[in-house]
Amino acid sequence: MEKALGYHSEKPGKIGTVALTPLSTKEDLSLAYTPGVALPCEEIAQHPSLAYTYTLKARTVAIITDGTAVLGLGDIGPLASLPVMEGKAVLVKQLAGLDAFPLPIAEKDPQAFIDIVKKVSASFGAINLEDIAAPACFEIEETLKKSLDIPVFHDDQHGTAIVVYAALLNALSLKNVSLQDTRIVVSGAGAAGVAITKLLKKEGARDITVLDSKGIISEERELPAYKQELARMTQKQPGTLQDALTGADVFIGVSRPQSFPEEYVRLMNARPIIFALANPTPEIHPDVARRGGAAFIATGRSDYPNQINNILAFPGILKGAMATRATDVTHEMKVAAARAIAACVTPTPDHLLPDPLDNTVTEEVARAVARTAREQGVTRAA
Amino acid sequence: MEKALGYHSEKPGKIGTVALTPLSTKEDLSLAYTPGVALPCEEIAQHPSLAYTYTLKARTVAIITDGTAVLGLGDIGPLASLPVMEGKAVLVKQLAGLDAFPLPIAEKDPQAFIDIVKKVSASFGAINLEDIAAPACFEIEETLKKSLDIPVFHDDQHGTAIVVYAALLNALSLKNVSLQDTRIVVSGAGAAGVAITKLLKKEGARDITVLDSKGIISEERELPAYKQELARMTQKQPGTLQDALTGADVFIGVSRPQSFPEEYVRLMNARPIIFALANPTPEIHPDVARRGGAAFIATGRSDYPNQINNILAFPGILKGAMATRATDVTHEMKVAAARAIAACVTPTPDHLLPDPLDNTVTEEVARAVARTAREQGVTRAA
Repeated sequence: MEKALGYHSEKPGKIGTVALTPLSTKEDLSLAYTPGVALPCEEIAQHPSLAYTYTLKARTVAIITDGTAVLGLGDIGPLASLPVMEGKAVLVKQLAGLDAFPLPIAEKDPQAFIDIVKKVSASFGAINLEDIAAPACFEIEETLKKSLDIPVFHDDQHGTAIVVYAALLNALSLKNVSLQDTRIVVSGAGAAGVAITKLLKKEGARDITVLDSKGIISEERELPAYKQELARMTQKQPGTLQDALTGADVFIGVSRPQSFPEEYVRLMNARPIIFALANPTPEIHPDVARRGGAAFIATGRSDYPNQINNILAFPGILKGAMATRATDVTHEMKVAAARAIAACVTPTPDHLLPDPLDNTVTEEVARAVARTAREQGVTRAA
Repeated sequence: MEKALGYHSEKPGKIGTVALTPLSTKEDLSLAYTPGVALPCEEIAQHPSLAYTYTLKARTVAIITDGTAVLGLGDIGPLASLPVMEGKAVLVKQLAGLDAFPLPIAEKDPQAFIDIVKKVSASFGAINLEDIAAPACFEIEETLKKSLDIPVFHDDQHGTAIVVYAALLNALSLKNVSLQDTRIVVSGAGAAGVAITKLLKKEGARDITVLDSKGIISEERELPAYKQELARMTQKQPGTLQDALTGADVFIGVSRPQSFPEEYVRLMNARPIIFALANPTPEIHPDVARRGGAAFIATGRSDYPNQINNILAFPGILKGAMATRATDVTHEMKVAAARAIAACVTPTPDHLLPDPLDNTVTEEVARAVARTAREQGVTRAA
């Protein structure tokens, strides 16, 4: 605890800026500032894409939040979110080699927030949205993706979905079963739960049950629009977690801590896959899940095998998208990232994923994402 | 020309970000990101001022523009303004040792622009406004100064006014005359002209004539609000530049290039002071001014003596204000900066100001600004 505060107070903070060009002589000054600086300005005014040739836009990611869903702390506001946003910026810098700047925005209305993000986007080549509460996060990401020509990536949704899918690909391959023939339970209908469900559905999963704190999400319940969409997608009857787990092959927990006992695992099909990702307390303790018969177990914790950590995904996604000047992060790019992560290990039940600090992963993900972006033609002619 | 473009395309751009804390082990990761990062977040949520203890806010300046008055290029927009804003960020970094990030905002409506700046200010300990057209710049700066508790500084106004005043202090001291007894002509009623006039007036100047492109600013003319204020302040009859210069002691030109001949200098009082700051072509060439009898000549150009360069002011102003966590940049702090700059040289007619790259100046200015902020009590208890 003391150590974490000390780590943050030394500089203070974690990300700084640095001059990349010399500035010690009058000539340097005349190039960096007036009169020389007028030339790149005029070039960009005539050909906006030259911003990628002459400015930080080519290599800089905005880490943007409204501060409404910061870690497990909730709506602590933009100022208090800064350490997380700086942390994310440092990770992007260290792992992807991109520049990144934390920019919390004090605006909770989704439309007004979107408007501000659009208007401050000139400096950035990509936008990483972070810790924005559901359901605002869905509208914000969708609208920004449509209206900006730079990649926009909400990590809490897709970073988690990609790493979950990577781990699931390896678990299913060890079980030698297909996603199509797998019964999946997703507990939690926030940013991560929605993104996981949509990604798996698009990838061919036919039987998904999604639960929120009130039970199975079903068209028979009264639901907000984004949960209605989940209900239509999954076509389930109302019920409890117990109902959902009975006969299921996979449990993916991305809920507020809501624990379930060993007995529930026994309701599942043989050798079930349990990804209990609630933080800091998983929905079921890994040891308990194993006693119940779980064959493949992942958590969000670093002190157990198979840590589902977004670090495996977002640096490579951003790097691959920026390298190709992608105009979007498509479903196919996300799937390519998941497959690349999965391919970084020879899977075993305790080794479904590479280590979060294995720095070859970002490279592999970036390469796969860039290749897919090029194949799909969502890149800007460089 | 090739060289200036090459200087900008190498990285590309001029300012980057850098990780300030280690991130190579699992422990580093647990301090920089989850779970350790939750601690400074919670501390800041409880005590907002701890953002200065745990985040980049303590050392980071936003370089903000709407792109409407970029250099002499005019309204080239936020994207094309980036090289200038990056250049400013590099200067702040190199000269003041502060972190700085360029953030152009695509919003021309002053009220909407103000609203956005307020909402993105969490990451920043100070805001440097840059290249915003008059009269919007006045409303924007005034409103932001009132509504934010971090220093807000519009460099095109006050940076220029401070350096002009520094040079003027030394010229007047060499002439052994007082500001009160000096007849001053300010040509140009944009950001710099307004700020210079107001600063000199507050410092005791009793006779100032301000001109815009239509002649002397006078209550007898139809004028927008901000020029009406100048007219009231200066109490002049309508007239031409020739009228204004007749019997004047000082000419300060901050106009769009609008040249005047040697004869006009002869209309002025003996040994006049001519600061012809239009860029890149001064209102009167220094050699012509000298032939006309000018005893003290300054320009904005680096190839003549006495370059009026904002670099002498803004890094030290920002550094002194940030060091004391000043909540404002007051008139007294600006005057302290001007006096500190003036005191950096033993003045001669060709040496009214220190060299723009003399790195002792920033230190002296910062010290004077910090001392004044403390004396005035406009600092936050640190």
